[in-house]
Amino acid sequence: MVTLIDKLQKIISKDKKIAIGLMSGTSLDGVDAALVEIEKSSIETKVKLLEFATLNYNLEERNKILDICANETSTVEDICKMNVYLGEKMAEAAMKVIEKAKIDKTDVDFISSHGQTIYHSPEYFATLQIGELAVIANRTGVITVGDFRPSDMAVGGQGAPLVPFVDYLLFNNKTKGRALINIGGISNVSLIEADAKPEEVVAFDMGPGNMLIDAVVSIGTNNKNTYDANGHFSSKGEVCNNWLDVIINKDSFLTKLPPKSTGREQYTFELAQNLYDEGISRNLGFEDIVATITAYTIRSIIMHFNNYIDVHHNIDEVIVSGGGVYNNTIMKGLKDGLKQEVSIMDQWGYSSDAKEAIEFAVLGNEFLQGNNNNLPSATGANRGISMGKLALPY
Amino acid sequence: MVTLIDKLQKIISKDKKIAIGLMSGTSLDGVDAALVEIEKSSIETKVKLLEFATLNYNLEERNKILDICANETSTVEDICKMNVYLGEKMAEAAMKVIEKAKIDKTDVDFISSHGQTIYHSPEYFATLQIGELAVIANRTGVITVGDFRPSDMAVGGQGAPLVPFVDYLLFNNKTKGRALINIGGISNVSLIEADAKPEEVVAFDMGPGNMLIDAVVSIGTNNKNTYDANGHFSSKGEVCNNWLDVIINKDSFLTKLPPKSTGREQYTFELAQNLYDEGISRNLGFEDIVATITAYTIRSIIMHFNNYIDVHHNIDEVIVSGGGVYNNTIMKGLKDGLKQEVSIMDQWGYSSDAKEAIEFAVLGNEFLQGNNNNLPSATGANRGISMGKLALPY
Repeated sequence: MVTLIDKLQKIISKDKKIAIGLMSGTSLDGVDAALVEIEKSSIETKVKLLEFATLNYNLEERNKILDICANETSTVEDICKMNVYLGEKMAEAAMKVIEKAKIDKTDVDFISSHGQTIYHSPEYFATLQIGELAVIANRTGVITVGDFRPSDMAVGGQGAPLVPFVDYLLFNNKTKGRALINIGGISNVSLIEADAKPEEVVAFDMGPGNMLIDAVVSIGTNNKNTYDANGHFSSKGEVCNNWLDVIINKDSFLTKLPPKSTGREQYTFELAQNLYDEGISRNLGFEDIVATITAYTIRSIIMHFNNYIDVHHNIDEVIVSGGGVYNNTIMKGLKDGLKQEVSIMDQWGYSSDAKEAIEFAVLGNEFLQGNNNNLPSATGANRGISMGKLALPY
Repeated sequence: MVTLIDKLQKIISKDKKIAIGLMSGTSLDGVDAALVEIEKSSIETKVKLLEFATLNYNLEERNKILDICANETSTVEDICKMNVYLGEKMAEAAMKVIEKAKIDKTDVDFISSHGQTIYHSPEYFATLQIGELAVIANRTGVITVGDFRPSDMAVGGQGAPLVPFVDYLLFNNKTKGRALINIGGISNVSLIEADAKPEEVVAFDMGPGNMLIDAVVSIGTNNKNTYDANGHFSSKGEVCNNWLDVIINKDSFLTKLPPKSTGREQYTFELAQNLYDEGISRNLGFEDIVATITAYTIRSIIMHFNNYIDVHHNIDEVIVSGGGVYNNTIMKGLKDGLKQEVSIMDQWGYSSDAKEAIEFAVLGNEFLQGNNNNLPSATGANRGISMGKLALPY
């Protein structure tokens, strides 16, 4: 008789595993699927991206997900149906990256899925990531790990951020202190000093990333553009420094001491609309407004280095990932403003687009190895825990 | 390094395991916890009940759960909070049975939890059982399996009934055909002919169990009694056969051919109120009404044997479980009306109260062994599957 052990043993005993990491962010763009080769585990982990694919949500899907995220419009029925629907969608994303890589699905050892967050409240230790694991496992025929956050919250953590743990596994270094900045909707940082122990890693959110820039571009172009590709608009405008000072002074999050986290509820579309209107009333052109809002993101990151990171931590290198790396204005601003050498994630062999999906594959690998895969110093958990749940396809 | 395999190996390699099955039924009474010793697996499985405990929901908890079961009153926030809250509650039930048995929690090899169903739609292959597995695992320190139904639905099944699979494991017999009747809110049956293969097991719902009796007693006693203890009221009344014929003829579910399932949506409180009012208008006394509604349950079971089971299946013995076994009127009715020998589950060493909780412990054991634990002939799934998800406490 073939036991669960036998089935897992085949996977876990491998020196190199083929895995798929699935990520669906709060930006509700769709599902990212990273096909990776993972060598070993824990601090010996090495990951190589083999292929990457994205399956976009259409507007109807996006709106349906938004409906179940809000108390006013969510129903138990819609949540359950969407859980199955997104399970199918995530399985489809996995199959897409498998086909793109021209491999067979039986070559994949496991899938690890973040799921689509529809609720997250650290205050109540309650969170919900949907995209049914049993559906992903059965459509693909591959063992599936997922639903990580509830485990960290069960031991008193905030269930976030999870990425710094993998940042630590992949980027800890004997002699160099490294800061990993991710510029997604918001910007966050993981600080890994030279020869740091996992419990010494510090991670926190720094403020707006692309969220306000995207919104202001959408407003100013009537949705013709939804983001500032390559920093095109901002590079043609001029920063209004007086106004920028006003904006920065109003944002009390920027001067709060870590640990701290923020999100969509702080940097809302309404805030972007107000900023846009204020820019217009100051007689600024569209490109000047975009340049100033882009400077808001740059300045908020540099402020954190000047006032906190460079005071309390020894950081030699800065590595930037997330959509923000494709905004030349942001990257130039960081290179000019930070004393450290600044590189982008792609130079390290990890695609900026794929980084989060890659990292969730690593979290799944740690679960299957039986290792702790949360970082109490970042999440506030009272102990390490092997986060995740396992679903079988047979 | 201790891997997941090592952790599971310690449990799975044991010839006898100590486990806790947790069951929370749609009656919303609370959480049943059965501490069992499970020997071997698959059709060699032997289970012994060591201890049993129940943790009742109070009225506020019950109402809050009812709120998140209905589209009108459910919100994503309340569902998430209740998922964590019930996880705590289920962990508490597990700890209660551990303390009652005077064992240490480190003696328990695994917990297997059904969860509290708050939505179930076979039509959309969507279901939701809450009571966070990560919370149960971490509060108790014990590996926890649960969330079975989505796996069966992922392979095209109805996600129900799950109990017939365990009925088969525990009661299949070389020479005797057995019918296992469970009389809970509704009544259902598993038919296991002599020397049957698992795919030959037939299971279906037969109609009302205790649901209407309970409701009529509540109405007639102004909630002083909520069920007919020992069949006290019905034994003092007389069945109105004319009226019973009318009731039976009106219930089209009774003559539907299997496979079929029913539930709370068919045998509602409103139906009970209408029946009670009709009894009064027929000048029947309270006890006569209870006797007639009790006869409705008895007759609907006997009809299924006369018209279907005894025609198509070779059944030598009938074994009854569920709350209905404590109703002497029901048991007398079945013994008088069925040609088979009728026994109650308790005589077989399985407490009627604890049966479902015991059975979910067995389903969890099958998952850990890597065996299929659904019954496609009962659920309609297109194949066997190892249902469940695994969460770790360390």
